[in-house]
Amino acid sequence: MRHLLDTESLSRANAIAILDTAREMSAVGEREVKKLPALRGRTVVNLFFEDSTRTRISFEAAAKRLSADVINFSAKGSSVSKGESLKDTAQTLEAMSADAVVIRHWASGAPARLATSGWIDAAVINAGDGTHAHPTQALLDAFTMRAHWSRLSGVPSVGGDLSGMRVLIVGDVLHSRVARSNVWLLRTLGARVTLVAPPTLLPVGVEHWPCGVSYDLDAALEAGADAIMMLRVQAERMKASFFPSTREYARRWGFDDARLARLDALKLAETIIMHPGPMNRGLEISSAAADSPRSTVLDQVRNGVSVRMAALYLLLSGGMPAAHAPTSAPPAAKDHS
Amino acid sequence: MRHLLDTESLSRANAIAILDTAREMSAVGEREVKKLPALRGRTVVNLFFEDSTRTRISFEAAAKRLSADVINFSAKGSSVSKGESLKDTAQTLEAMSADAVVIRHWASGAPARLATSGWIDAAVINAGDGTHAHPTQALLDAFTMRAHWSRLSGVPSVGGDLSGMRVLIVGDVLHSRVARSNVWLLRTLGARVTLVAPPTLLPVGVEHWPCGVSYDLDAALEAGADAIMMLRVQAERMKASFFPSTREYARRWGFDDARLARLDALKLAETIIMHPGPMNRGLEISSAAADSPRSTVLDQVRNGVSVRMAALYLLLSGGMPAAHAPTSAPPAAKDHS
Amino acid sequence: MRHLLDTESLSRANAIAILDTAREMSAVGEREVKKLPALRGRTVVNLFFEDSTRTRISFEAAAKRLSADVINFSAKGSSVSKGESLKDTAQTLEAMSADAVVIRHWASGAPARLATSGWIDAAVINAGDGTHAHPTQALLDAFTMRAHWSRLSGVPSVGGDLSGMRVLIVGDVLHSRVARSNVWLLRTLGARVTLVAPPTLLPVGVEHWPCGVSYDLDAALEAGADAIMMLRVQAERMKASFFPSTREYARRWGFDDARLARLDALKLAETIIMHPGPMNRGLEISSAAADSPRSTVLDQVRNGVSVRMAALYLLLSGGMPAAHAPTSAPPAAKDHS
Repeated sequence: MRHLLDTESLSRANAIAILDTAREMSAVGEREVKKLPALRGRTVVNLFFEDSTRTRISFEAAAKRLSADVINFSAKGSSVSKGESLKDTAQTLEAMSADAVVIRHWASGAPARLATSGWIDAAVINAGDGTHAHPTQALLDAFTMRAHWSRLSGVPSVGGDLSGMRVLIVGDVLHSRVARSNVWLLRTLGARVTLVAPPTLLPVGVEHWPCGVSYDLDAALEAGADAIMMLRVQAERMKASFFPSTREYARRWGFDDARLARLDALKLAETIIMHPGPMNRGLEISSAAADSPRSTVLDQVRNGVSVRMAALYLLLSGGMPAAHAPTSAPPAAKDHS
Repeated sequence: MRHLLDTESLSRANAIAILDTAREMSAVGEREVKKLPALRGRTVVNLFFEDSTRTRISFEAAAKRLSADVINFSAKGSSVSKGESLKDTAQTLEAMSADAVVIRHWASGAPARLATSGWIDAAVINAGDGTHAHPTQALLDAFTMRAHWSRLSGVPSVGGDLSGMRVLIVGDVLHSRVARSNVWLLRTLGARVTLVAPPTLLPVGVEHWPCGVSYDLDAALEAGADAIMMLRVQAERMKASFFPSTREYARRWGFDDARLARLDALKLAETIIMHPGPMNRGLEISSAAADSPRSTVLDQVRNGVSVRMAALYLLLSGGMPAAHAPTSAPPAAKDHS
Repeated sequence: MRHLLDTESLSRANAIAILDTAREMSAVGEREVKKLPALRGRTVVNLFFEDSTRTRISFEAAAKRLSADVINFSAKGSSVSKGESLKDTAQTLEAMSADAVVIRHWASGAPARLATSGWIDAAVINAGDGTHAHPTQALLDAFTMRAHWSRLSGVPSVGGDLSGMRVLIVGDVLHSRVARSNVWLLRTLGARVTLVAPPTLLPVGVEHWPCGVSYDLDAALEAGADAIMMLRVQAERMKASFFPSTREYARRWGFDDARLARLDALKLAETIIMHPGPMNRGLEISSAAADSPRSTVLDQVRNGVSVRMAALYLLLSGGMPAAHAPTSAPPAAKDHS
């Protein structure tokens, strides 16, 4: 694997290599090992065509913890705003000897174009493109679920297998690259995914995705869940026609205090509540839910650095299993309820 | 001491520990010692909700000279502008293993909230909050005065004692966190402070502050001063009602050429003129005053890096005296005139 | 030499020292040598009063490859926008122990003012000022031409001599600091330069420059050229009166597909096409020309990092030949056609 572009084309072997490496990386930054010299002298460019401080500093922290040099390139005020093409920008970075380009772009497909165009030799990591994909987010989510699932099942997690784990992904699926990347990666790792959303916030063709679909969060909870992933409502992408009001949205698809209590009533004692952040407290998630012991929000942030260290390390050190190596099929899902 | 939030609660022992350490740090960056490895592998986040390039790069230079990794987080274009709460921002940084958060915030009290909320384990350094406090500015000012006072008195400065030193703080006290932080720290170190300002630019309750108050700069100069600290007029915070005109302000409360000459006439040969920068030349200070041998403006900038190195080092290496250790009372002020 | 301000005053000895050192630097970043420790502990400040991501990250990459610490100071949102003078900004950076200040400024002459004012001891590198100069761009262009010329002539390039090389500089000379810096440096290195531009885009007094002038690109090509440097059309600086239309501009002064083909017809098999980037594809250069084997656009970017490493290294390590050392006159230009 030379690039990390999406999770749909990410083989099970590569996904597991990243997750396993991330587990090792998670010890770096702790008391003993502050920093690894692994990428000393390598240059990682954060090429951001869209603001995302959280993702940018997560990659920056990851790269620095591996001793790489980091150069932040925000498209604002750059040649890009003077009309420079992605191609010219890319080749410029290449000519400056970037070893990896972490790209966030408002256009779906821009990272793939960068990687497959032959414009550059650098490794490309997709840090979110349009409504398409956000693979490191899905990997950090999987890392978080794996830690939970392994603790829950009492079986040390081997191979990142999430067979039988029931995951709800709730909210604005239509605009969510996080949802898309999670659906594909969780399929690869053997989990059973159900999307829960208003019909207006589900994309055309969702029936062909490898997951179930529901419009009713309460019914989905009744059916049982081991992890509930609440998506961010992106107000800037919303049109009035998508749902009646934010109040109505919160009531029907928000994870509010009543639903938090309902988990206990349903004897779902081990169910975790996930959110990619930043949260709209009071809209898609209540503060009580966000701060409850079930919440993995901060674990996700923490795991994000480890997963990004792993991705950078494997792509730049060449330690990644070959892209086209035969990948073992995910084991058949077992009923866990 | 786990955080550095203000100077009102800063014990004498801790203030002196920072000043003594800063003196040692001031040698770093010179020919011999370019860089200390003390904070290698530690991450310092500059979390700036308000622009301040000078303060930001002073902290950045300080952290890098101690070999820490620095991540700049400007609230502009970040999740904060998408409505993320301070709590969520803080926890995100914590989860990314920030060891110290240097915070500049437009709201008074935000750094204290960050430090005492239990949201994070990282050390918090207040880099200026609203009109409340700017402790590293006061510490660098004290460092500058101490060097002066020790040279002047012929006594090697032990313990940072400024007993008997007469300090005027002149100008827009109302909006100045610099003035507030200086008043408290100088009290702790034994100096005698007089605020000089138009009545409209003095805060309610100033009569309870541990300092004198005057409306008349010339009278205050007649009474004698060892250091005169001119405050920046912050045009953006000024209303027309505060003073008649900028011309009138400069004439009555600016340190102009006439007052510079007056110092000689008053035989105040050793009196220094301070300014936290950036200066409004011609308004609160004349160019002749700003560039005279009496001016310590550049020493203050230089000392700022040393003081910030000291604060980062002591907070992160745990070398700080305990917060609640009994602090010796400042010695009684002696008349120096 | 303590500063790098322009190419008009750059001696031949210093120019060649930079070009020779850049050749050695060009190996850094390759497999073997990832990074040099030469400037460890030194601080390079990028002081940008004008946006220029490309130039900024080129300097940043150069400095980091030499192990320097880099601090980016964008004048936006800084004290500068609060009205701070260049002098105060400079002295602030000096007091923070900046070893080198890389300055980009919208005002012609600002870097020279910084360097010669006595405000600072730091080395000043002009990264582009107004319409005046952009010396590292000219040096990277010369580096690129030198590599070409040496390959072409079969003579290992000693001393960077470009005697007899014919260079066309085409387009908006009026607003171009790149053109000015190239004219002077190429004269010093012995090349023969012809400016090709619409009369409205030539500066007053161009007849006193050490180069020829033509209004007709096709005629200039007929006369023969070894390097053709296309200038960027800076739409933001253009008034309608300068030329009839962008279409007309492209037809008469753009390097389009027809002219690319014409080079072959003219048996100019070795002629290279240069552009400082970012390119307006379809305006001053066609995509076919920009991407042809003749194009050195990416070499120029790559060489930019090497040249900037060389400049930083020589200025900060004191390895530069003395500024006022007698410089040998450029050898008389020989006819190469």
